[in-house]
Amino acid sequence: MGEFDLKNYLSLRKQLVEDQLEKIFPVPAGLQKKVIEAARYSLFAGGKRLRPILCLAAAEVVGGEIGPVLPAACALEMIHTYSLVHDDLPAMDNDDFRRGVPTNHRVFGEAIAVLAGDALLTEAFEYFALAGHVGAEKILEVMRIAVKAAGYRGMIGGQVIDLECENRRVDLATLEYMHVHKTGALLSASLEIGAVLGGGNEAQIKALKTYGHHFGLAFQITDDLLDVEGDIEVMGKTPGSDAAKNKMTYPALLGVAQSKDAAREHVERSLDALAGFDINAEPLRAIARYLLVRKG
Amino acid sequence: MGEFDLKNYLSLRKQLVEDQLEKIFPVPAGLQKKVIEAARYSLFAGGKRLRPILCLAAAEVVGGEIGPVLPAACALEMIHTYSLVHDDLPAMDNDDFRRGVPTNHRVFGEAIAVLAGDALLTEAFEYFALAGHVGAEKILEVMRIAVKAAGYRGMIGGQVIDLECENRRVDLATLEYMHVHKTGALLSASLEIGAVLGGGNEAQIKALKTYGHHFGLAFQITDDLLDVEGDIEVMGKTPGSDAAKNKMTYPALLGVAQSKDAAREHVERSLDALAGFDINAEPLRAIARYLLVRKG
Repeated sequence: MGEFDLKNYLSLRKQLVEDQLEKIFPVPAGLQKKVIEAARYSLFAGGKRLRPILCLAAAEVVGGEIGPVLPAACALEMIHTYSLVHDDLPAMDNDDFRRGVPTNHRVFGEAIAVLAGDALLTEAFEYFALAGHVGAEKILEVMRIAVKAAGYRGMIGGQVIDLECENRRVDLATLEYMHVHKTGALLSASLEIGAVLGGGNEAQIKALKTYGHHFGLAFQITDDLLDVEGDIEVMGKTPGSDAAKNKMTYPALLGVAQSKDAAREHVERSLDALAGFDINAEPLRAIARYLLVRKG
Repeated sequence: MGEFDLKNYLSLRKQLVEDQLEKIFPVPAGLQKKVIEAARYSLFAGGKRLRPILCLAAAEVVGGEIGPVLPAACALEMIHTYSLVHDDLPAMDNDDFRRGVPTNHRVFGEAIAVLAGDALLTEAFEYFALAGHVGAEKILEVMRIAVKAAGYRGMIGGQVIDLECENRRVDLATLEYMHVHKTGALLSASLEIGAVLGGGNEAQIKALKTYGHHFGLAFQITDDLLDVEGDIEVMGKTPGSDAAKNKMTYPALLGVAQSKDAAREHVERSLDALAGFDINAEPLRAIARYLLVRKG
């Protein structure tokens, strides 16, 4: 197991996803081309492609091919990117930089940033519809999973909770509830969608959702920890920015040591969820373990 | 034909659509409920429900039942509403009132207005997925029509063109190109989707798309004319607001008399497109003719 080369795996998968994303928005010649330029700007602003990579990995774990899953995997990245563009807006988190480059509205203006986000979200549904090999019924199932995870019952709901809790002292349950919605829902849906499109059975889909739930929480806790302990060079953003913005975080609530324990606990539980899978789950195991040593 | 009671028809259909919309977003108890309240605020702020009404009418013209088409018809209204919420934002058209009531961001703040729009767009795709009676393949076709009409190839593209042309003198071709994208695409898609879900054949779907194209242009021209000649009581907004904002309009470009001719011409062409249909097309004919005498 120690043989698995995670760095190489992630780099190859990232390339695969980016090659596909590259094909999605041909820049049109008309007056409306600016919105596509803006959408592409954020789509290629250096993401880790975590959601598509998890989606593809889940498909493989249950014995599926990755080729036909790739469009849906890219749709998940489009939804993730749209949420970042809208979250960065002045009316929301008002961020000037993300991943070391100016945010969308800093480059294209607020109006175009709103529309570029809208376009990424809208077109994502076209991409879900491309997984024709599994049959239309399953695609509709995938879309319903995506809507639930991205909409008010998931990511959007989480963002609203975040806004509502700003500058307010919240308890651990509320913080977790927020993250389960804001980041956890789409991460978990990425695994569920991969499992569905890969042809997984009910028990397998459920196990991968559980992995996604704990992975999502471990991801968020380690993200918060990076903001306390991280390196600006690796992260592309300034450590301490959460505290400066009065954001509620795990370290602020639990302290650093207890946050690290919590992250370890969720990684363990995510690995437990994979117990029924064979060596094909090694990438998912390695990605989860990596959260505990990540630097960016 | 003179017997057809358009006013009664529109009123009954509006009620049908609103009863269905009422069921869509149950207000949740959690911290995220604000976004649903905001989405519902704009969803029930007094629209004419034109897109769902056209969608249902198209389904009937080709011999379909309206019950199973209702969720998709509502999804079109959700997409239309999201576009109004985002278009009204300070960074876009910066409108304080719509249909006589304060715009979404004036009531809920900009952040929630962005998210309420996002939620309406996202959940619309769940509603398209509910037209199960036609089979999943057709639903995917409908979703592709909706994405094309709502995204950068349609409505979002039109909004970008509008932004790009602000305070700039444009020619008639550019103005028409903008409106065909900004309002025409979704109107036309409403008819196309109704025709597909109603079981129409290719020629019928094409005829209804053509009707939608000309209807959309006539709708926009008469909308522009109302802004010059309209009555604030009926319209719920101040006449002359386009001119005050330096918006390019048909009357500004062609004059009032020639704009009226153009509207009449497009209504005629929309009626021509219905030539192959029987008395079932009477509602669509009456709605098109009504554009020439509308007061709001």
